[in-house]
Amino acid sequence: MVERTVFFLSDQTGVTAETLGHSLITQFSGQKFRKMTLPFIDTEDKAREAVSTINAVSEAGELNPIIFSSFVQDEYRVIIKQAKGLHLDIFDAFLEPLAAELQETPNHEPGRAHGMSDIDAYMKRIEATNFALANDDGGISRNYEVADVILVGVSRSGKTPTCLYLALQYGVYAANYPLTDEEFESGKLPEFLVKQKSKLFGLSIDPQRLTQIRKERRPMGKYSSAPQVRFELRETEKIFRRYGIPNVDTTKFSIEEISSRILDTTGVERRVRP
Amino acid sequence: MVERTVFFLSDQTGVTAETLGHSLITQFSGQKFRKMTLPFIDTEDKAREAVSTINAVSEAGELNPIIFSSFVQDEYRVIIKQAKGLHLDIFDAFLEPLAAELQETPNHEPGRAHGMSDIDAYMKRIEATNFALANDDGGISRNYEVADVILVGVSRSGKTPTCLYLALQYGVYAANYPLTDEEFESGKLPEFLVKQKSKLFGLSIDPQRLTQIRKERRPMGKYSSAPQVRFELRETEKIFRRYGIPNVDTTKFSIEEISSRILDTTGVERRVRP
Repeated sequence: MVERTVFFLSDQTGVTAETLGHSLITQFSGQKFRKMTLPFIDTEDKAREAVSTINAVSEAGELNPIIFSSFVQDEYRVIIKQAKGLHLDIFDAFLEPLAAELQETPNHEPGRAHGMSDIDAYMKRIEATNFALANDDGGISRNYEVADVILVGVSRSGKTPTCLYLALQYGVYAANYPLTDEEFESGKLPEFLVKQKSKLFGLSIDPQRLTQIRKERRPMGKYSSAPQVRFELRETEKIFRRYGIPNVDTTKFSIEEISSRILDTTGVERRVRP
Repeated sequence: MVERTVFFLSDQTGVTAETLGHSLITQFSGQKFRKMTLPFIDTEDKAREAVSTINAVSEAGELNPIIFSSFVQDEYRVIIKQAKGLHLDIFDAFLEPLAAELQETPNHEPGRAHGMSDIDAYMKRIEATNFALANDDGGISRNYEVADVILVGVSRSGKTPTCLYLALQYGVYAANYPLTDEEFESGKLPEFLVKQKSKLFGLSIDPQRLTQIRKERRPMGKYSSAPQVRFELRETEKIFRRYGIPNVDTTKFSIEEISSRILDTTGVERRVRP
């Protein structure tokens, strides 16, 4: 299948153009896309260079490129428009109706979305990340009083990446605690967790999937054996029921989805926003 | 100042609507926004509930709400459209021209953008996160041969959050190594890093800012004293110059910007895309 080149262009990081473009192109499964991000196009020279890069694709006789862009600064968007391809720019599409509604002229200043305009937000994300690391895997700090949410689940159910994502993306203080033989034998959670019951959120996972994940880590032994995995997940399920812990099956979801579902279910407020 | 309510709506996670909306509203600094995300609107009941929530704001006599949405499924978007407010939907704006260009009808299937449609991408992000954790702060594994990039810089210059962001967002294998007295005294990097010179990327930071960050952690002592901080950063600068290590000043940038600049400068390929 002939590849179609998709460009993500921005005078800033390109994160917005990438997110938008990705959402849209995943709706077309009959295509093969080659993706290229050109960020920080913040001089006229860089803008002209980007035009050359895009036009080289067109001139090579390939399919018409798709160009997702988010240019805060009009002068560079104007240059980029000279490139041959389908242009889809979020500021083109949405800035005018938004300005009319808000009755305000936009700043056209770069770096406001994913930039350092908000040092406070930056520090909150860093602090939340440090919190997640210090409170990972039941470990070190156990600062559960200040946690926003405490994830519980078996080893390799996705606790650590989810906590880190919640911290980096939303500045949420997420701790996690692994369920192990101690909990399975007694069928009970330790007292320091029961005290924080309202903050607990469970991660479950399909036994086959978990077996596969664990085998990649330790191919042999009890840890990755199917009976052990099934036992742990059955006991986990009992604990979730016993304490009425809301939970999500991570088998079917991405880290973004798991995180969004946790915030949606628990009502935990984002401390910062992307 | 009267607050304006901004809704981020989606039949999926809401991440796309949030990213898009955030980029746009940060262009208007003369407003105060109250933000609300309503994700996973994937039944008619939930769609009608969202309409009620939005209309309650309008009916309370507040300013007309702004509604950023990304609805893959048309049937829910149609219901949402009944809510009173300014509607800005990315599928409305961009799906038709894109479908015409690609000559393909979109799937209208949810969960493709931030969903588990790509288990392989999920696993790559998890593995990259585990790599970042195992290779954080010069620690444990030192699997530098398989690293895509190795960040070097003084304590609290932003190495850990940047590595984790690169892993979670892009599946990039990012290690980091702290510069300490050992390097400052000899003016040299250890041999195992020199071997990987092409992978090194430096993080620098403004002395005042670093002093402030360190004081929050340890208010007293040499670690957070201004002369020590200035000394460390001066020596770091020398090491960057000596080895020709590209670097970025993290003072002025967000985690997204630092990460984007690292990928842009080094040419390291994203293993997954957001």
